[in-house]
Amino acid sequence: MKSGKFITLEGIDGAGKSTQLDLLAALLQQKGLPVVVTREPGGTPLGEQLRTVLLDQSVTMHAETEALLMFAARREHLDKVIVPALNDGSWVISDRFTDASFAYQGGGRGLNWEKLALLEQWVQDTLQPDLTLYFDVPVELGQQRVSSVKTPDRFEQEQKNFFQRVRVAYLRRANQFPARIQVIDARQSVTAVSAAVQQALEKLIDVITDE
Amino acid sequence: MKSGKFITLEGIDGAGKSTQLDLLAALLQQKGLPVVVTREPGGTPLGEQLRTVLLDQSVTMHAETEALLMFAARREHLDKVIVPALNDGSWVISDRFTDASFAYQGGGRGLNWEKLALLEQWVQDTLQPDLTLYFDVPVELGQQRVSSVKTPDRFEQEQKNFFQRVRVAYLRRANQFPARIQVIDARQSVTAVSAAVQQALEKLIDVITDE
Repeated sequence: MKSGKFITLEGIDGAGKSTQLDLLAALLQQKGLPVVVTREPGGTPLGEQLRTVLLDQSVTMHAETEALLMFAARREHLDKVIVPALNDGSWVISDRFTDASFAYQGGGRGLNWEKLALLEQWVQDTLQPDLTLYFDVPVELGQQRVSSVKTPDRFEQEQKNFFQRVRVAYLRRANQFPARIQVIDARQSVTAVSAAVQQALEKLIDVITDE
Repeated sequence: MKSGKFITLEGIDGAGKSTQLDLLAALLQQKGLPVVVTREPGGTPLGEQLRTVLLDQSVTMHAETEALLMFAARREHLDKVIVPALNDGSWVISDRFTDASFAYQGGGRGLNWEKLALLEQWVQDTLQPDLTLYFDVPVELGQQRVSSVKTPDRFEQEQKNFFQRVRVAYLRRANQFPARIQVIDARQSVTAVSAAVQQALEKLIDVITDE
């Protein structure tokens, strides 16, 4: 039985997810909570193999193929990492999860949300994150923050309007699930964003204590 | 618009599919029909990459992950090969298609057929083969026919009762779609099996001529 908590971090590149993920993991560890940090696509040996295919700039694929591969990697991630860790009482923090499929394959690539919802239900049944932190930044700011040194992957090479559609989809999704998804204004300083993360976390812990 | 015909060949290894596929392709070519021969999992560069993962004996994965990967490869196969060829007026012969998912992931691995039917609908919408030839052999005979020289892949290494479940699922599926799936007794000689294939083909051509 699930006794841990599942937290997912979402946002476009340059939103500051990675920094906040590290701070969040440290915060939970300070509270003496067992933490498992993972990511999508990936998180398992097979998932990482699929991640390589999904991010490979030289690979072309239909948007629906991309969605099916994302959910295949997710099915494995749930089976091998997320569910066992939650059953074990760990707090699982995942750098991206299903909301990213609605944002990238839905918003970005234009896939129908109803079709994505069918896969979500197929793969997750009733399992959902306990808390999702969506780090919202304007696309321009996100792109400025991303190091220009790295070669862009298959997603990063997309044009600005692709990421604008991704951002809009994330906001729509947050609007649809306001109790689960906390929108954090990620234009702010690292300290201010971290304070907002901490606040969202304390709220989740209060809910648990009240249960 | 689809103007070609789509024929799929199904059966366990050792049923004689490959031999009959070659004979069938030659027969269609003799009739002056354009033929595209393909296979699953595979048929596209991405599909072949996924085939390698799916058949790799050293890879372990959840049965639902396996099903999602099969359907991801299939989505790409439809988009890049099958649908364009059919629209072009070609006859497409595929060595295995969705019935194999019901047989292997459904029968063999025990996945729920309703869940598989959801993926079938998601990926294919209303597209179905015009004719499916299911080559039925007892598992023992199939295994005797398969060369013992080759190292078994992730499916071939399964035990006899796995293939017995696969065979039963193929027969159930044929029973469910009697107009599309022709069960061919593949215990017979190559010549007798080929005659049965030719008969099924003539029937399909008669149907087309009558249209």
